[in-house]
Amino acid sequence: MARYDIAIIGTGPAGLEAAVTATVRNKNIILFGNKDLSNKMQVVDHPIKNYLGLPEITGKEMAAAFTKQLEILGIEITETKITSVYAMGEYFALQTADNNMIEADSVILASGVVAGKPYPGEKKFLGRGVSYCATCDAPLYKGKIVAVIGGGANEEAEADFLGEVCEKVYYIPLYKEEPKFTHDNIIVVKEKPQEILGAMKVSTLKTDQNEYDVACVFILREAQFPGQLVPGLATEGSAVKVDLMMNTNIPGLFAAGDIAGRPYQYIKAAGQGNTAALSAVEYLDAKRRAK
Amino acid sequence: MARYDIAIIGTGPAGLEAAVTATVRNKNIILFGNKDLSNKMQVVDHPIKNYLGLPEITGKEMAAAFTKQLEILGIEITETKITSVYAMGEYFALQTADNNMIEADSVILASGVVAGKPYPGEKKFLGRGVSYCATCDAPLYKGKIVAVIGGGANEEAEADFLGEVCEKVYYIPLYKEEPKFTHDNIIVVKEKPQEILGAMKVSTLKTDQNEYDVACVFILREAQFPGQLVPGLATEGSAVKVDLMMNTNIPGLFAAGDIAGRPYQYIKAAGQGNTAALSAVEYLDAKRRAK
Repeated sequence: MARYDIAIIGTGPAGLEAAVTATVRNKNIILFGNKDLSNKMQVVDHPIKNYLGLPEITGKEMAAAFTKQLEILGIEITETKITSVYAMGEYFALQTADNNMIEADSVILASGVVAGKPYPGEKKFLGRGVSYCATCDAPLYKGKIVAVIGGGANEEAEADFLGEVCEKVYYIPLYKEEPKFTHDNIIVVKEKPQEILGAMKVSTLKTDQNEYDVACVFILREAQFPGQLVPGLATEGSAVKVDLMMNTNIPGLFAAGDIAGRPYQYIKAAGQGNTAALSAVEYLDAKRRAK
Repeated sequence: MARYDIAIIGTGPAGLEAAVTATVRNKNIILFGNKDLSNKMQVVDHPIKNYLGLPEITGKEMAAAFTKQLEILGIEITETKITSVYAMGEYFALQTADNNMIEADSVILASGVVAGKPYPGEKKFLGRGVSYCATCDAPLYKGKIVAVIGGGANEEAEADFLGEVCEKVYYIPLYKEEPKFTHDNIIVVKEKPQEILGAMKVSTLKTDQNEYDVACVFILREAQFPGQLVPGLATEGSAVKVDLMMNTNIPGLFAAGDIAGRPYQYIKAAGQGNTAALSAVEYLDAKRRAK
């Protein structure tokens, strides 16, 4: 079995940029993800305005530009889910969902913030009244009524920002502490979300007790614990703990993009992917020199 | 005088992305730099391959894409060099090379990395015959002999102004193009500056070939060392010390791009510019909530 220089997990901007940079630096890589790239990206149909160099671009157009670049550089995407990454000391072993083992000298985690179990209707309405990012999508719901499902107290700032922009915000905490807001148009609803309903777009959030007419349901979950993916990986809240060079606590393992924390932004993710790839290249070079 | 929400220093990818993100977030910004954007970018004529979304692009084409985005968002570039940034507690005061003061609630440093080290004697004589601003300090050297170390052709106008005021100006270009002046008391010296000498004040500029009796050495670098630009700013080597959110040690002051350290890459710079802008937005919001 061939051992790769760098295994990259994730095909959002962080993973793609890491693959591009590592390839330009002549490393032998394997890139795990989706040929559609990122689901989140594909469903964005309002123009993204703050990716420098690609003004007023939709998610689909952005994905097309990224795909073209992969083609130019001959980078392929392996559509296999990685279920575990084991640090073996000298190398990493990556277990795939179809039960293969892949070996690599270094790994870049760029799999994004993974939502837990979706609510009924969540997938169906993603991008049409279901959002995972209040900061990104708030402007679309200016003056409207929205709901926020908050996975943790650190989501309250996002809801507060929605309170500034929207007419009314129903805030459903998935935790016990009493939420605190500076806007009084945010109504705390201590009920259990059950289903997201609508026709073309979201119209209703159904809980165990009521139905709320809303234009959008913001689902701000605590991210899936990345420590489940990589045993021994240090985390900080829902994010992998990294330094400025995208090092994690495990030598040879790097993280970039949403999995490495806020802000959840395309260009920030790409920038970190670049840094992670260059750090991996340095790690590999140092390792080879030491032999 | 209007006070800006965010003053952004630098028109490389970090400063531009910061300006784009802050503008999308409705902040009132001022962006200092060059309408040509970055000198370094303009001269890259081999294709840049690892800026995700812009495959196989030259520096000129990249600059054109960035400029187009600024136009779409109505972002203007103020072509004034900032010589000092003072943290005043509640706000920042920025001194311009043409001797104005600009006020801003927060500042993003994105002026790039300065090559080399200070000249021997530079720190010692700062304010006593070493100056970083010809326009500010020219009146002090009326009728005297001065030297100018010019980091780029756009410093020639400053030297020309000194030619008007001073008896004689030695101009040492650190670049290859032939300098052009309108005053014939400016003498171009193609030597390498080595040391600044004097007793209480500067008396001599020593080069690799000669010694010049001068009352002042104006050092007009393309960018300033960060610690000289912002008194009290913590640095690490030649870089501003930042955390993952691009915070510096001074609240409300952020840094992004090459000035914040390696790797020196366009997309990494842009990503950090995005993060710095969002951190500035959060800082401003928290400040307003606290009032």
